[in-house]
Amino acid sequence: MRSEADERTMREFRTRRKIEFVDTDQGGIVHFSRFFVFMETAEHQFLEALGSSVDQVIAGRRVGWPRVSAACSYKSPARFGDTLEIMVRVVRRGRTSMSYAFEFRAEGREIAQGQMTSVCCELEPGRPIRPIPIPEPIASQVSD
Amino acid sequence: MRSEADERTMREFRTRRKIEFVDTDQGGIVHFSRFFVFMETAEHQFLEALGSSVDQVIAGRRVGWPRVSAACSYKSPARFGDTLEIMVRVVRRGRTSMSYAFEFRAEGREIAQGQMTSVCCELEPGRPIRPIPIPEPIASQVSD
Amino acid sequence: MRSEADERTMREFRTRRKIEFVDTDQGGIVHFSRFFVFMETAEHQFLEALGSSVDQVIAGRRVGWPRVSAACSYKSPARFGDTLEIMVRVVRRGRTSMSYAFEFRAEGREIAQGQMTSVCCELEPGRPIRPIPIPEPIASQVSD
Amino acid sequence: MRSEADERTMREFRTRRKIEFVDTDQGGIVHFSRFFVFMETAEHQFLEALGSSVDQVIAGRRVGWPRVSAACSYKSPARFGDTLEIMVRVVRRGRTSMSYAFEFRAEGREIAQGQMTSVCCELEPGRPIRPIPIPEPIASQVSD
Repeated sequence: MRSEADERTMREFRTRRKIEFVDTDQGGIVHFSRFFVFMETAEHQFLEALGSSVDQVIAGRRVGWPRVSAACSYKSPARFGDTLEIMVRVVRRGRTSMSYAFEFRAEGREIAQGQMTSVCCELEPGRPIRPIPIPEPIASQVSD
Repeated sequence: MRSEADERTMREFRTRRKIEFVDTDQGGIVHFSRFFVFMETAEHQFLEALGSSVDQVIAGRRVGWPRVSAACSYKSPARFGDTLEIMVRVVRRGRTSMSYAFEFRAEGREIAQGQMTSVCCELEPGRPIRPIPIPEPIASQVSD
Repeated sequence: MRSEADERTMREFRTRRKIEFVDTDQGGIVHFSRFFVFMETAEHQFLEALGSSVDQVIAGRRVGWPRVSAACSYKSPARFGDTLEIMVRVVRRGRTSMSYAFEFRAEGREIAQGQMTSVCCELEPGRPIRPIPIPEPIASQVSD
Repeated sequence: MRSEADERTMREFRTRRKIEFVDTDQGGIVHFSRFFVFMETAEHQFLEALGSSVDQVIAGRRVGWPRVSAACSYKSPARFGDTLEIMVRVVRRGRTSMSYAFEFRAEGREIAQGQMTSVCCELEPGRPIRPIPIPEPIASQVSD
């Protein structure tokens, strides 16, 4: 049985994004690399909705979320002027990492599906990138 | 036993690319989405090395290679000024599609590994995107 | 004295845009080239607010707005998480072209000023790009 | 009469760049914003040819070249597969700034002309961006 606290944890998030001219290529469709940018910004909006900044400084050290993997499969082309509906879902919350699934739709059509895993890291200039436990308020709001 | 003809078919290709300032983000490393651009351009260089243009017109119709899937896993950050060595390998050649594996290295360090599947398609403006058999000179040079 | 018709014409437009992580570079600020993308998308939103699509087909021919010039001067850096307030103003409406001025501000700070001139053109694939008179509903809504 | 020292100073530089698929937009031509990236990378190649890194650390402080202005006028479209010949010229060398002119050509056609002014700055994270005198080896190689 899931506890009330668990039920209050947030694992899904929806956002929208309008395709810009610069997103297109000469094939007349959105360049496939842009979906990775769309995923990242949706991830950031999700973290913000949890009350966290992506650009945190914790104990005087800059914290960021470099990716360890990202993937996308393309079902139907998106075009200039389309508004993408983007669904973000946490599929796994580890001690230092978050794995997300993404669904992109436009006017009922399935456009693409993506996955991404980000690791919470200390990102001090001139120092090696080091994983750290997921900080608050994210940790307590996304059940593991 | 592989025939001589098979052995002459080309399934691997190497190229290099210098990281530009615009490839970086405020984390001080190459933005993860850029690796998908690096894969695409390496794929295009490979097709050119086979004697094919990426931007063919066949029987009066424009032909292109939209992606059906793309993935990347990140091993070590790449930075401004690094020169990436990129290895492209055809892992599967189907009737209408090509699947590639990519390895990115910089000064001995493993940077990233990628996969991508592209489908050869008719891309006429205003018409649906339609898969077509892989044209010459690619078909005869990459064994299936 | 300005006529009623003149007063109804629309020459100014405001929009907002939140800086994304991908907009930044390793200097920790928004990459200067991104402001040209911000101008283009603001121009498109302005044309849409006039009731026009940027991606029109007129008499069976695709119409677009290639740029003949673009410039930007940078006053203060914009950073990840900033929300830019963007002011678009038509500074000249010619027979085939529009010249715009842009102001970018963030929380009262002046960030950048831009200019851009776009020419309305027929953009048929495989044919030369040819300027055409600015179509309706834009022509009648922006006084020359 | 130009002195010998003046004649040894380097004020011009040429480079080439092949247009990539991702540089194009659905108009079938290179997106206008890309020329600013091309200018920046050509500037960096010029500074490297002078024996300087763009990403210097001087007296323990990171040095960079944020732009104060950039402009481009577009003469003829560049397309996928074109190789741009890029000519960089220093038009003014001040105490803290460099102003460049750029010419872009492809197979004899004039493609675009650009201008850019960059200011040499201390770019320490968390500190205000502060102009500093142009460092060696650039200062002595580009006459003012």
